[in-house]
Amino acid sequence: MKVYEFNGFPNPARVRIALAEKGMTGRVQFVTVDVPNGEHRSPAFLAKNPSGAVPVLELDDGTCIAECTAITEYIDHADGNPILTGKTAKDRAVIHMMQRRAEAGLLDAVGTYFHHATPGLGPKLETYQCAEWGDHQKQRALAGMRYLDGVLAKQPYLAGQNFSMADITAFAGLGFADFAKIDIPAECSNLKAWRARVAERPSVKG
Amino acid sequence: MKVYEFNGFPNPARVRIALAEKGMTGRVQFVTVDVPNGEHRSPAFLAKNPSGAVPVLELDDGTCIAECTAITEYIDHADGNPILTGKTAKDRAVIHMMQRRAEAGLLDAVGTYFHHATPGLGPKLETYQCAEWGDHQKQRALAGMRYLDGVLAKQPYLAGQNFSMADITAFAGLGFADFAKIDIPAECSNLKAWRARVAERPSVKG
Repeated sequence: MKVYEFNGFPNPARVRIALAEKGMTGRVQFVTVDVPNGEHRSPAFLAKNPSGAVPVLELDDGTCIAECTAITEYIDHADGNPILTGKTAKDRAVIHMMQRRAEAGLLDAVGTYFHHATPGLGPKLETYQCAEWGDHQKQRALAGMRYLDGVLAKQPYLAGQNFSMADITAFAGLGFADFAKIDIPAECSNLKAWRARVAERPSVKG
Repeated sequence: MKVYEFNGFPNPARVRIALAEKGMTGRVQFVTVDVPNGEHRSPAFLAKNPSGAVPVLELDDGTCIAECTAITEYIDHADGNPILTGKTAKDRAVIHMMQRRAEAGLLDAVGTYFHHATPGLGPKLETYQCAEWGDHQKQRALAGMRYLDGVLAKQPYLAGQNFSMADITAFAGLGFADFAKIDIPAECSNLKAWRARVAERPSVKG
């Protein structure tokens, strides 16, 4: 298997953490896509992922899987423990729900702010920006942090008692927020404590 | 189980189709949330789904599942055939990838256009609009239709040989596009043929 990515970017980080949780990192060849120089918009890469986003998981039969949730589904069903996407119908549903909330309400909101209301990746790559929408998404990201903080007041992880795909998404979202200079609201002590705890996992610490 | 929804809206349609595909419709009590009069923003509904969106699946133990992908995961793992989210790791990954593309590139893009660049649900409910972003998302929806058309030139369904969650999302997205008066580009003959075929499924036809 190959993972096309740019190491350090928030979405590739999600896949690296999932692989490490499953003990599968050594089975993957990482291929750097030179995003800062626009390689993700080359015909060769667009053939792998028409949206031009990293990461992409390429299976040995040539099938290309984009979108982190989809890649995580593959990784989680390809091998043993821990289970990142749930076993029972209910566990799967709660994890996917919380994953989506962490994605839409934090990671993607931060990304939209970064790409639209800041210089983002620079004028060559940010060919369309809508600053008003970007600023609105910053507010959404802050609301997302407060929501996640409330969830973590009642349980250790976003989907309940166990670390899951939802935690990976939110953790990557906070990393992106740091990069985009969106601070976690001071009162979000549960979110900060959770983040410190997740940062100590071997899959994250490396 | 209860499903809180507004019949005829695009996201509730996704859950209704999934339930019908699995033969589970009769096991669900549908509860109308009066979205046109703002009931989805009442404290009682926000306690079920903090984002205020319909549909929400409430399990018999009181657990509330929001987000259509999560609800579909529940439905698909609660009972037998057909399988809507895939069996093997690869099938699951491809279906989730195509579902996400249909969602972000079509259904959600149409929704953002509708809520931001048209009167949407009216001035009482559309309390923040960003018309520029809405218009941009209309272009994204049209590009999404062209992309899906290309996929369907090579295979009968969005994730391959079998109908899946990805088809449900795209079908609901086209229904929303009709409502928002975004026409399928004339040249998208594969997409139109696929739509006619899906519309004939008993789960859709009713």
